[in-house]
Amino acid sequence: MKGKMLTAIMLFFVFCTIGFGQPNLADSQPATSNVRAARYPRVTSDLRAMFQVKAPDAVKVQLQLGKVFDMIKGENGIWTITTEPLVPGFHYYFFIIDGVTVSDPASESFFGWGKMSSGIEVPEQGVSYYTLKNVPHGDVRQKWYFSEVTKAWRRCFVYCPPDYNLNLSKKYPVLYLQHGSGEDERGWSVQGKVDIILDNLISEGKAVPMIIVMDQGYATKAGAPAPVPGQQQSGPSAFEEVVIKDLIPFIDSNLRTISDREHRAMAGLSMGGMQTMQITMANLDKFAYIGGFSGAGRFSGSGLDVNKDFNGLMADAAAFNKKVKLLWIGIGTAEPQNMYKAVNGFHLSLSAAGIKHVYYESPGTDHEWLTWRRSLNEFAPLLFRIP
Amino acid sequence: MKGKMLTAIMLFFVFCTIGFGQPNLADSQPATSNVRAARYPRVTSDLRAMFQVKAPDAVKVQLQLGKVFDMIKGENGIWTITTEPLVPGFHYYFFIIDGVTVSDPASESFFGWGKMSSGIEVPEQGVSYYTLKNVPHGDVRQKWYFSEVTKAWRRCFVYCPPDYNLNLSKKYPVLYLQHGSGEDERGWSVQGKVDIILDNLISEGKAVPMIIVMDQGYATKAGAPAPVPGQQQSGPSAFEEVVIKDLIPFIDSNLRTISDREHRAMAGLSMGGMQTMQITMANLDKFAYIGGFSGAGRFSGSGLDVNKDFNGLMADAAAFNKKVKLLWIGIGTAEPQNMYKAVNGFHLSLSAAGIKHVYYESPGTDHEWLTWRRSLNEFAPLLFRIP
Repeated sequence: MKGKMLTAIMLFFVFCTIGFGQPNLADSQPATSNVRAARYPRVTSDLRAMFQVKAPDAVKVQLQLGKVFDMIKGENGIWTITTEPLVPGFHYYFFIIDGVTVSDPASESFFGWGKMSSGIEVPEQGVSYYTLKNVPHGDVRQKWYFSEVTKAWRRCFVYCPPDYNLNLSKKYPVLYLQHGSGEDERGWSVQGKVDIILDNLISEGKAVPMIIVMDQGYATKAGAPAPVPGQQQSGPSAFEEVVIKDLIPFIDSNLRTISDREHRAMAGLSMGGMQTMQITMANLDKFAYIGGFSGAGRFSGSGLDVNKDFNGLMADAAAFNKKVKLLWIGIGTAEPQNMYKAVNGFHLSLSAAGIKHVYYESPGTDHEWLTWRRSLNEFAPLLFRIP
Repeated sequence: MKGKMLTAIMLFFVFCTIGFGQPNLADSQPATSNVRAARYPRVTSDLRAMFQVKAPDAVKVQLQLGKVFDMIKGENGIWTITTEPLVPGFHYYFFIIDGVTVSDPASESFFGWGKMSSGIEVPEQGVSYYTLKNVPHGDVRQKWYFSEVTKAWRRCFVYCPPDYNLNLSKKYPVLYLQHGSGEDERGWSVQGKVDIILDNLISEGKAVPMIIVMDQGYATKAGAPAPVPGQQQSGPSAFEEVVIKDLIPFIDSNLRTISDREHRAMAGLSMGGMQTMQITMANLDKFAYIGGFSGAGRFSGSGLDVNKDFNGLMADAAAFNKKVKLLWIGIGTAEPQNMYKAVNGFHLSLSAAGIKHVYYESPGTDHEWLTWRRSLNEFAPLLFRIP
C-alpha cells in the first residue's frame, strides 16, 4: 500500500513536471493565424508559442520572432522551439533555415517587412472587441482606381458598415486609414481586423456607421524614379497628391459619402501616422479628425515649434482647436524608447502649446498590431460626433 | 584596321552569345506576381523564369516549379536558376532549402497546395481579357456569414458588377464559383482574376452583369470529425448542405439577386467542378446553368451510365436538355492524361447519350489557372441568356 502511494506521489510529480515545467500538446491549440488544418505553430494556455519545422538535412534552423531563437533538432529531423510567454496580439515571425530567412508555409501570409511574412496570433484574455460575433456585419471591398498622379492603377480596400447595403439612401462619413512602413493596403483588414472591430463598435452603438478607406501608402509620380520602400519622403509626397487628387474624388464619386471636412477623418500607424499628420495639416479644408497611432511626430529638434512646425498652424491654439475637431495620438508603453519618447514628447509639447488632443497609451504593447487595434478601438468611437 | 574588324566581329559573337544563348537581366522583367519592388523572380522575353535566392550557408537549394530544378551557387552565396521557356499563365512554385520546402518571400502568397505558396505570372502575348483596363470596375467583397450546418462563421468573397452600386433598384443573377483542392475562397479573385475578367466581358457586352459568389469548398458538420483537406467526400457533403441551407439564403437576403433557378449558376475547377456536378444535379430546382472546369466527371466505370449516374437524371435526355439550360465542361490539352481522359470521356459519353452540352479544350495548358481563366472567359458569356 505504501509502495502504491509512493508510486502515485511520484507519478503526480512527473505529471506536474510535464504539465507545468514543459508545455505539452494537450495544453496548446493551433494558432488561429495558421492556414487551414495546420497543427503548428501552437499557443499554450500560458501564451507560449510552439513552433515546429521538418528539416532533416538542415544544419541550423532558427526562429525569428522579435529576437532570434535557435531551434532544437529532434527525432525524424523535426526542429522545435517553445518560446517564453508572449504578449498577446499579432506578431510577425520567420524561420531561418541555414541562414535563409523564409516564411512558414503553415502560417497565413501577411504583408509586412516588405514581404509576405508569417504571423502568429496570441489570444488576449478578457477582451472581445476584435472577435467575430453574432452582430450585423459590414464588408471589405477591393476596389481599383486609376491614379492621374502615378498614371497607374491602384488598389484600395473599403470597409462599408453593416447597414450600407440596406439603407440605400443613407450617406456616410469616411475615415482614411493607413498602414505602416513595409506593410500595404491589406494590413488593416487582415492584421488589423478593422471590419470586426467596427462591426462590434457599431453594433454596440459605440461608433457611428462609417466608411473606412485603406490605400497603399506608396506612390511614385509618373516618370519619377521609384522611392525606396518604407523610406519617408520629404515635402509634399506623391502619396499626398494621390490622396487629394485621385483617391478622395474616387471614393466620393463611387460610394455614398458625406463629402465635407466635418465628415472626413484620416489616421494611420507608424509611417501612416506621419503621413496622416503631413497630409491633414496641409489640407485642413478637407479633414477635421486626425489620428496618429505610434507615429505622429515630425517636429523639429527637441520639441514642437508652433511657429515653424505644421506651417505654423498651431501658433494660434484657439483657432487650431476650433478648426480641428479631434487630434488623437497613441503609443504602446513597450514600444522602443525612441518611438515612445517621440510620441509622448509630442503629446507633452501639444499640451504645453495649448493644443487640444487625446493621448492614449496601450499598456504593455510594442510597435505591433495590438497597439493599433486598441488605438482604432479607442479612436473610432470619437469620430464624427464632435459638434 | 583588320585587327579592329576582327575584334568587332569577335565582340559581336560574344554579345550574341550573351544575348541569345543565356538570358540576361536586360531582357527580363520582374514577375508581376512579385511583392512590391522585388527584382526576382524575373521573366525573360522568351518566357524563361529567372530565380535567385541568397543562401551562403545552404548546402543545396532547389526550385520546385512543376518539376524540381537544382539551383547553382554563385558569388556571394547567391543561388540562381533560369528555366526553359514556360507556358504562359500562373504557376505555383517553391524553394527547397536543404530539403525544406518554403515559400519565396519575394513572391506574393497564394493559397494553393494547402498552404501559402509562391506563384509566378508568365505573360501571355496577344490576349488581354485578364488585363486591368480602363473600363467600369466592379468590386470583390469579403463577407462573413454564420453557418447553421457547421455552427461556425464562414468567409466568402462576392464579386459585384460595375453598375451594382449605381443602379440601386436592379437585381442580378448569381454564379457560385468554386476553387480546387488545396485552394480556398481566395483562389478565384487572386489567382483567377475573376473581377478583371468579368469587368472586361461586361464592358464589351459579352457577358450580362452578374454577381459571383466564391466560398470555401470545405465544411465539417458541427460535431463531426474534420475532413482531410482536399479529400473528396462521398455522398451528400457538408459543403452541399452549407451551399443550399446557409450560403444561398445568405446571398439572396444580403445582395440584390434574382433568386429563381433560371438566374442561378454553379461552376468550379477540379474538385470544385466535381462538387458543382454533385450539388447542382441534386438540386436542379435551384440551378439551371452548370460548369465543370477540369473536373466534371464522377461517373461509374468506363463511361456514363445514364440510368445510374446523377440519380438517373440523364436517362430522359430530352427532359434533361429542357431542364438544364447550360452544361459546360472544359479541360486543358496539356493536363495529365487521366484528367484529360476523364473530362473528354465524359464529353463523349454525354454526346452519346444525347445530352446537350458545350465542350471546350484550352490549347496547351495544364491543370493550372490559365486553363480556368480561359474556361471562365468562355463560360461566363453563355450565362443567363438561354431562353
